[in-house]
Amino acid sequence: MPTAPTAPVPSASSSLSTDSAVLLDRLRAGLPADALRTDPEALAAHTRDAAPFSEAGTPAVVALPHDAEQVTHVLRTAYELGVPVVPQGARTGLAGAANAIDGCVVLSTTRMDRIIEIDPANRLVRCEPGVVTKHLNDAVAEHGLTYPPDPASWERCTIGGNIATGAGGICCVKYGVTADYVLGLDLVLPDGRRTRTGRDTAKGVAGYDLTRLIVGSEGTLAVVVGATLALRPARPAALALLAQFPSLTAAGDAVAAITAAGHIPSALELLDRATSQAVADHGHALLRPGSAATLIVESDTTDPAGDLLAMELLCKEAGAENVHTASTPEESRHIIEARRLVTPALGAFAATLGGKPTAFIEDVAVPRSELPKFIGTIEEIARRNRLRIFTLGHAGDGNLHPTVVFDESDPQEFRRAQVAYDEIMAAGLALGGTSTGEHGIGTLKRDWLTRELDPVNLELQRGLKRLFDPKNLLNPGKVVEA
Amino acid sequence: MPTAPTAPVPSASSSLSTDSAVLLDRLRAGLPADALRTDPEALAAHTRDAAPFSEAGTPAVVALPHDAEQVTHVLRTAYELGVPVVPQGARTGLAGAANAIDGCVVLSTTRMDRIIEIDPANRLVRCEPGVVTKHLNDAVAEHGLTYPPDPASWERCTIGGNIATGAGGICCVKYGVTADYVLGLDLVLPDGRRTRTGRDTAKGVAGYDLTRLIVGSEGTLAVVVGATLALRPARPAALALLAQFPSLTAAGDAVAAITAAGHIPSALELLDRATSQAVADHGHALLRPGSAATLIVESDTTDPAGDLLAMELLCKEAGAENVHTASTPEESRHIIEARRLVTPALGAFAATLGGKPTAFIEDVAVPRSELPKFIGTIEEIARRNRLRIFTLGHAGDGNLHPTVVFDESDPQEFRRAQVAYDEIMAAGLALGGTSTGEHGIGTLKRDWLTRELDPVNLELQRGLKRLFDPKNLLNPGKVVEA
Repeated sequence: MPTAPTAPVPSASSSLSTDSAVLLDRLRAGLPADALRTDPEALAAHTRDAAPFSEAGTPAVVALPHDAEQVTHVLRTAYELGVPVVPQGARTGLAGAANAIDGCVVLSTTRMDRIIEIDPANRLVRCEPGVVTKHLNDAVAEHGLTYPPDPASWERCTIGGNIATGAGGICCVKYGVTADYVLGLDLVLPDGRRTRTGRDTAKGVAGYDLTRLIVGSEGTLAVVVGATLALRPARPAALALLAQFPSLTAAGDAVAAITAAGHIPSALELLDRATSQAVADHGHALLRPGSAATLIVESDTTDPAGDLLAMELLCKEAGAENVHTASTPEESRHIIEARRLVTPALGAFAATLGGKPTAFIEDVAVPRSELPKFIGTIEEIARRNRLRIFTLGHAGDGNLHPTVVFDESDPQEFRRAQVAYDEIMAAGLALGGTSTGEHGIGTLKRDWLTRELDPVNLELQRGLKRLFDPKNLLNPGKVVEA
Repeated sequence: MPTAPTAPVPSASSSLSTDSAVLLDRLRAGLPADALRTDPEALAAHTRDAAPFSEAGTPAVVALPHDAEQVTHVLRTAYELGVPVVPQGARTGLAGAANAIDGCVVLSTTRMDRIIEIDPANRLVRCEPGVVTKHLNDAVAEHGLTYPPDPASWERCTIGGNIATGAGGICCVKYGVTADYVLGLDLVLPDGRRTRTGRDTAKGVAGYDLTRLIVGSEGTLAVVVGATLALRPARPAALALLAQFPSLTAAGDAVAAITAAGHIPSALELLDRATSQAVADHGHALLRPGSAATLIVESDTTDPAGDLLAMELLCKEAGAENVHTASTPEESRHIIEARRLVTPALGAFAATLGGKPTAFIEDVAVPRSELPKFIGTIEEIARRNRLRIFTLGHAGDGNLHPTVVFDESDPQEFRRAQVAYDEIMAAGLALGGTSTGEHGIGTLKRDWLTRELDPVNLELQRGLKRLFDPKNLLNPGKVVEA
């Protein structure tokens, strides 16, 4: 059985034979001094993203180019010398897709953080990959516009990383994911050639959709040096409700009833029993202890109060025992705070564990109707493996993030966490789900990808990798083996 | 300069050397008698789609398989014998993508028209490719759901054809295009291998996005034998308004103001001077003659009356002279009728031409803000070439359909129509547009694709074709040359 937490990052044997002095000399010829770092602090800081357990190597050098020309120089140089290149954004990814390989060039796009143009008439923005998602949103908000995708790390992650991972978020249940907003891309291919995909228009079907192929490809096919993104009008003010249920089935019934009635909430988040309890223990006043599940629903229609009232009734009909429906923005903020408190609450729980407490966050999506069964299975897996697993997620999308909190210094508990990870993934696939709803494959889930896709599909995936990167030098070993 | 109306379909030299008796014998071995037709009527009926001017050959045989197994047999047989296969749906396409090649096997998916499963809880439907778009919509409507994409031919076209062309429609300005609704696909590759792409879940980022690569690939990479499509709650009742403007600039200002105010109408259609006049001449009571442009706006928000009132004011501030805002469904239908009358009105105009009147419908998208300039340029092109060009289109998307109505039997007028076609396309690209917003490349626009995309992008496009179809047997000569 594949055990993703120990999935190896392949060592870059080709790079080890390359004289690193030659590599540096060649890179220096086309980059300013501040765009190359080889000091141990920089190398150490750029070894990995935020995925725990995933193996990571030490780069030979970190390149921080300022523009597309410098990216081209880095890629062309590495290509000629046969050195692997690992693109990185803010390294907030959760699948190891940005983990370095021994002897590689890390290509960080964080310094390419210019917003080139905001075009309100055509509701689009052109920017470089290093722009932080929140900064982009702040900038377009001044024009009454919004860029909806809101991954948890949106205050730090970059647009380039969002594109590479096909990032999701909480409001995606209504507004869609990163892929839905990418109109066009400026790319540098592994051999340094430049190309542009997509268009500046709202619609277009000219040729095969290379843009969408790059989104979610985790920096394995090309490096994004520019993006044209669609925007939407600013979102109306939202209101929220919170409902607690005596059983998972009741919570699932409420989600089903909300869906069946045609509501499209702007957030539909679920906290399982363990997570609800942790947040209650952390002191959120609205959460009662002992509940099997908590739903947090947000509506930003033109009549959020009316829509929430209707959804409140549906929750109560499904058996909700503790319902709070906001009528003011302050009350809404208090409700949404329960979702935001999950991370600190889990941190507080972890601190009670002793040893080396670690949180391992999962990302599985199942058909929405299978949510109660899936959560029940996860609770059973937790019991059987004597672990604390906190499940929360985007109920409206069927996308859950079960989080195993355990003591990494205890070898037996570590092993049980690995087993639970595998069992959760297998259960998700058995329910018709996918091994990743929004975090990606990276190195963590490469083995799971081979279980999810059929052999012909996998062969096409590998063919795509070879088409873009015949030397297998761009982020090798991520997504699929070439 | 490329002249798409005469773009040739490559002859399939490999098929000419194949003994057609062998082909038929081999096909018969795996298909029921009613799934193969070689009578001249059937061959003639399956030579082409609805694109005028595009060359088309005569197939050796028309295969009408009933299921995926039979499709596999057809493709495997043709692959082994080196015979090209041209997939067809309802042949309502407008780019020649479904045009036959001499000696080919036409593979019609029209008999695979089963709706396998409607799943209201997960808001999705599984169906075969031959389901007519309207039938699908009628079936899901019984569950309070809708499949939004609404190409003009939606009462006849098939889901398979919609997927192949990446079809759009009128409500796409609010609800998105076909690509936005395709979650997963069952495919048969050119060599007969089967695979499945995508997922049954709302979200998912497992591997490169093969699903999106197939959408819009015009049957050149694989044959779709099944699709999982996302659905939405039924659309609320809509109301419409009609506004006429003294100048293109004024109409463009109204579109810009509606956009800037954050409205997302469910239709935002524009008729230029010639089209407005033709519809007025055809007897629509609300249209006044002599107007430079007509806007038809539909809103299906929860407060369409309030939203339309706001948009009415914006139209008037932009200079609209003749505004009708519906307050009842009947009034709305009357307004929408103006859009529906365009085709009969152009037919009536064509009948006055004498000779062999022909309508050549174009499909160019430009950034929304460039619409007034683009329409002005088209009017100038019409004058210079002494042609009647009727421009209508999806103003909210910047996607226009200039339609040249001319006498095909007049060689000089035919030539002028070709010149105008090229000039319109060049003008669209010069304004930052794309050569096709929703009709596709087919054979008609293959040369234009090579002008729109850069050489590296084109090389990747050809590489994708070779990856899926190394023998170049599946719909060869469409989209890109292998």
